[in-house]
Amino acid sequence: MPLDAFKAQVLEANLATVRHGLVTATFGNASGIDRTSGLIAIKASGVPYDEMTADHMVLCDLEGRPHDNRLNPSSDLETHLVLYRAFPGIGAVIHTHSTFATIMAQVRRPIIPLGTTHADYFHGEIPVTRDLEPEEIRDRYVQATGEVIVEAFRGRDPLEVPAVLVAGHGPFVWGRTPGEAVLNAVILEEVAKMAWHAQALVPATEPISQTLLDHHYKRKHGAEATYGQK
Amino acid sequence: MPLDAFKAQVLEANLATVRHGLVTATFGNASGIDRTSGLIAIKASGVPYDEMTADHMVLCDLEGRPHDNRLNPSSDLETHLVLYRAFPGIGAVIHTHSTFATIMAQVRRPIIPLGTTHADYFHGEIPVTRDLEPEEIRDRYVQATGEVIVEAFRGRDPLEVPAVLVAGHGPFVWGRTPGEAVLNAVILEEVAKMAWHAQALVPATEPISQTLLDHHYKRKHGAEATYGQK
Amino acid sequence: MPLDAFKAQVLEANLATVRHGLVTATFGNASGIDRTSGLIAIKASGVPYDEMTADHMVLCDLEGRPHDNRLNPSSDLETHLVLYRAFPGIGAVIHTHSTFATIMAQVRRPIIPLGTTHADYFHGEIPVTRDLEPEEIRDRYVQATGEVIVEAFRGRDPLEVPAVLVAGHGPFVWGRTPGEAVLNAVILEEVAKMAWHAQALVPATEPISQTLLDHHYKRKHGAEATYGQK
Amino acid sequence: MPLDAFKAQVLEANLATVRHGLVTATFGNASGIDRTSGLIAIKASGVPYDEMTADHMVLCDLEGRPHDNRLNPSSDLETHLVLYRAFPGIGAVIHTHSTFATIMAQVRRPIIPLGTTHADYFHGEIPVTRDLEPEEIRDRYVQATGEVIVEAFRGRDPLEVPAVLVAGHGPFVWGRTPGEAVLNAVILEEVAKMAWHAQALVPATEPISQTLLDHHYKRKHGAEATYGQK
Repeated sequence: MPLDAFKAQVLEANLATVRHGLVTATFGNASGIDRTSGLIAIKASGVPYDEMTADHMVLCDLEGRPHDNRLNPSSDLETHLVLYRAFPGIGAVIHTHSTFATIMAQVRRPIIPLGTTHADYFHGEIPVTRDLEPEEIRDRYVQATGEVIVEAFRGRDPLEVPAVLVAGHGPFVWGRTPGEAVLNAVILEEVAKMAWHAQALVPATEPISQTLLDHHYKRKHGAEATYGQK
Repeated sequence: MPLDAFKAQVLEANLATVRHGLVTATFGNASGIDRTSGLIAIKASGVPYDEMTADHMVLCDLEGRPHDNRLNPSSDLETHLVLYRAFPGIGAVIHTHSTFATIMAQVRRPIIPLGTTHADYFHGEIPVTRDLEPEEIRDRYVQATGEVIVEAFRGRDPLEVPAVLVAGHGPFVWGRTPGEAVLNAVILEEVAKMAWHAQALVPATEPISQTLLDHHYKRKHGAEATYGQK
Repeated sequence: MPLDAFKAQVLEANLATVRHGLVTATFGNASGIDRTSGLIAIKASGVPYDEMTADHMVLCDLEGRPHDNRLNPSSDLETHLVLYRAFPGIGAVIHTHSTFATIMAQVRRPIIPLGTTHADYFHGEIPVTRDLEPEEIRDRYVQATGEVIVEAFRGRDPLEVPAVLVAGHGPFVWGRTPGEAVLNAVILEEVAKMAWHAQALVPATEPISQTLLDHHYKRKHGAEATYGQK
Repeated sequence: MPLDAFKAQVLEANLATVRHGLVTATFGNASGIDRTSGLIAIKASGVPYDEMTADHMVLCDLEGRPHDNRLNPSSDLETHLVLYRAFPGIGAVIHTHSTFATIMAQVRRPIIPLGTTHADYFHGEIPVTRDLEPEEIRDRYVQATGEVIVEAFRGRDPLEVPAVLVAGHGPFVWGRTPGEAVLNAVILEEVAKMAWHAQALVPATEPISQTLLDHHYKRKHGAEATYGQK
């Protein structure tokens, strides 16, 4: 992909998180990867969203080596890199502190599939990572954050459940493209809000059946999807 | 009704659900029926709301036979058809995943009439369907969704209680016209929000009396209605 | 006051309730009284807010005798009249179904003064009326609604606590002027929201002390008020 | 700083509290201090936010002696003065009745650090003051409000925890500059909202570890901060 188009796409993902109400202040960051060139673009650190342009998208490779040196990348870059290396099918990563997803991360409660809203985008429970050890926090915090995410996805397909709650922190969300990652981040916040309210009113609310979960997910995803236009 | 005016009305109902904050992403769909011609118009599947025009309203008959072939209808079309066949008095159907109505569907709690806001539009409890059986989900999910709605309305007048919560899924709402269905969908979300909060604070909140329910409902509906202008 | 200015003021009060998010659909109505002429202006019944003009303000006297005959007044007119007759110091009445005030009316819980936000506008608990008797609902519902409000204010000064929650229905709010009534309706919704959340988290939350209640109220009201400019 | 620029900065802080949804009606006030000249600028009392200009910023010195006499300062001026005298490192003070911070002040529950959103801006628990004594309320309410804040910060660094909840009243927030104080007020409301929801769902939610609190705080603050651009 031409570099300008790539940066524009990642910029748009960053701005979309704000438009969708997922961001307070400068919390959050979105990145994308061009798997052909191996280049990653991510928001620069601490740039106010209302001044952000494509030039604030910082480029580096999968090991974090800068492609240019003008600006510091987001302080969460290392987490994104771990995810891009571990999940080869993903093309974009978004981190936010969106309200209800963050609350569920604070109470360390996975978001179980309570309805078809969840099933349309997430094929199963959205997990919570374990807490980081003190040494992990002190020595390699940002990278370790990526590692506990990867750990939480052992035995899970990150493309079928494209989100995680980092304990005591907030959500990381991904997708095949920046646009898909934005959509997943929006739906995550909505299902987190619904799960909070369902469980606050009826603590023992049961998840939907595996049959309904599978059926709804497969209407929108995979070879047999029937949703949308040809 | 001329076809253009009919499609415009159904388009407007789809767009109104978004304007009223009842829709996240592309969840939801609105349809209308012209009882004279027997034609149904429904949103095409997966069309982004901000690009939607009257040309995205797909036409078919009561058995779902397409009137034209350009676009796939909403994946929920069969549910709408079951409702139009079973409830001859209705002229429009709207499905959303509006937040609080969906939460109440997830916890499978009917919305009982706790106040006059409810009574002004719904003459009694808004029911929850039973869960679908695994075979129903696998073999004929969309149609079966319509059937459990009809089942939940045995002994109820669908025009007096123009909404239902499909268990683990979300609300379906209807009305004599697309505009009426939109209004009912808006009020449903508001009374669902009120019921959630009333019951979360005071679990044993009592419904209003049958006398107050009847009185408020009949001020706005039926032969003796006194509300509005002549 | 010239009739045109009077109607414009009452129109503005009706529109302000919508701007402040206190109104869903066409719920709610605002009226004003010109105590010199004895004329009351109130919103016509069922007029959509986005088409409302000063010409939709219907005039009548304190007994409800129409000053002109073009439009039906709000179906809640009789309640307003009872309040104007019983509370001679008030100049405007507003009825809404604003979300949290209505929820508190549904659970029949008075809003006790939990903070200075309350104390700045309401000098004590905002009461809930008793439920109407079936005969009252059937025979003279709208007038009886006014009467149970007046009953709830025995021993209270309606200008010091300018709001009430009608059980199972919603709030009525008033003030010396339409603008003051709008402000009271806005603050009522905010203190109802705060009281709901305070009591949901800590059911036994204590009200602020009488000393703090008095002090804050008197900073803004009465002969010794120090708030604002001379 | 030139007086015009100073007033413009304080005006902007007042307007920003409204833009960020922290203010209902005319609740709240923002001030700033020019430590070189010793001048303080604060919002005039009772001015509607939509008519507010730099000329409504009233000037006085650290003892409250007016620099000019046109308008009454905010009725909370004395509280601001106490804070400026006790906390020499701060350059601005903001008081709001923002919804969730006020609710936590009403239930007298400190906001403990439940997540990194909190840790990025507040290096520890946000305390609640004690209740004022009746004599304090009657004799010197506004000044005593400042004094109980200072009391609550014995053993705390006001620049590391730039906010407090005044029991039964609402938050006071500060910062090195008016812009920083606005940001702290926005984040406070968000962490208060998150804490309310976390604790309502899981009452025993544990704070994050001291290690994680320190690490996140120090990424953004102090000599070793790595956040943002050089």
